[in-house]
Amino acid sequence: MKHYNYFRSGTSHRLRIALNLKGVSAEYIPVDLRAEAHLQSDFTTVNPQGLVPALVLDSGEVLTQSPAIIEWLEERYPEPSLLPDTPEARAHVRALAALVGCDIHPVNNRRILEYLRHQFGANEDAINPWCGHWITAGFDAYEALLAQHGQTGPYSWGDSPTLADVYLVPQVESARRFKVDVSRWPRISAIDAACAKLPAFAQASPWTQPDTPA
Amino acid sequence: MKHYNYFRSGTSHRLRIALNLKGVSAEYIPVDLRAEAHLQSDFTTVNPQGLVPALVLDSGEVLTQSPAIIEWLEERYPEPSLLPDTPEARAHVRALAALVGCDIHPVNNRRILEYLRHQFGANEDAINPWCGHWITAGFDAYEALLAQHGQTGPYSWGDSPTLADVYLVPQVESARRFKVDVSRWPRISAIDAACAKLPAFAQASPWTQPDTPA
Repeated sequence: MKHYNYFRSGTSHRLRIALNLKGVSAEYIPVDLRAEAHLQSDFTTVNPQGLVPALVLDSGEVLTQSPAIIEWLEERYPEPSLLPDTPEARAHVRALAALVGCDIHPVNNRRILEYLRHQFGANEDAINPWCGHWITAGFDAYEALLAQHGQTGPYSWGDSPTLADVYLVPQVESARRFKVDVSRWPRISAIDAACAKLPAFAQASPWTQPDTPA
Repeated sequence: MKHYNYFRSGTSHRLRIALNLKGVSAEYIPVDLRAEAHLQSDFTTVNPQGLVPALVLDSGEVLTQSPAIIEWLEERYPEPSLLPDTPEARAHVRALAALVGCDIHPVNNRRILEYLRHQFGANEDAINPWCGHWITAGFDAYEALLAQHGQTGPYSWGDSPTLADVYLVPQVESARRFKVDVSRWPRISAIDAACAKLPAFAQASPWTQPDTPA
């Protein structure tokens, strides 16, 4: 299995965590987004959308889009499960994941910021508030949902990591990068700290990948 | 069951289609986004994130985030299935859905456009190209993936509607609204036309809802 990814991409980070939690190893194939390698034919023949991550199975079949790949992992490698037992609990966990995966991450990713820089003339004094705005709106809601669910354990749902944590931790990493003070959200901060102690999360960190700059 | 939604919201439209395909009826509770009813306490006590759709179950439990609610529908009401048989085929269908649900819709929705208008001074001459840019990038990739998958049937995958069509059709509706010429994508156009003939899709149209303006 080959995992086309990039050390600092949030969706790549997400998939690294999920692979690690499932104990599935995949060859790390770096795609240098800064050098626009994702738009070159070497990669677009793998994924015509030109976005990381992409997972190439041993059969040669290519899976794209981290939410789809992670559900595939859950189906093919059911243990340890990243989803709770009942359909309603699964819906709550998937809602937390979607809150990050649809409402925060996509509006702050590289291609969006490049458009804002080049078409709207946004400099970093405009980019950081843009990112901070969507992270804050999303984390406020995430924190409120944790409270509403009566979350008391170390993770977003129950006593073991779920899909929600797989999405949350890379978004916390990204929040720090955009200089958002994460201590504003005590539950999220505690979950992030609890996850950091697990090897599956620690080994997926953007700061320890083969393509992480020295 | 109560479905808090808004006639023109793409994620509400998506959930209406899925409910119809499953034959599940839910009371339609309109949330007037133009009047900012989604930010008022009547609705934020239902969904602290202040986003439609939200589905309130007969038990009182509230489900949010359309991707999570639709997976819940698939689990609770397995027939007719909106996903194909194998984990790999399901991953392809979920990837098409995520392409729309993560990479197109969230960057064009109302709150993003309001931010562009108010913080970046964008007028409609800047808004329409913004929306058109992300729709075009996404639909180019969607069309390429359909070709790569060898799609030959009337829908995005196989001979019956799937999760992918549930996401695609509202996005085509939105593309028309932003004056994007959808005929550029022949496969997408044909799928949209095929879906329009099905009552589940026709009855979910934004133009025939209780809160659709006369």
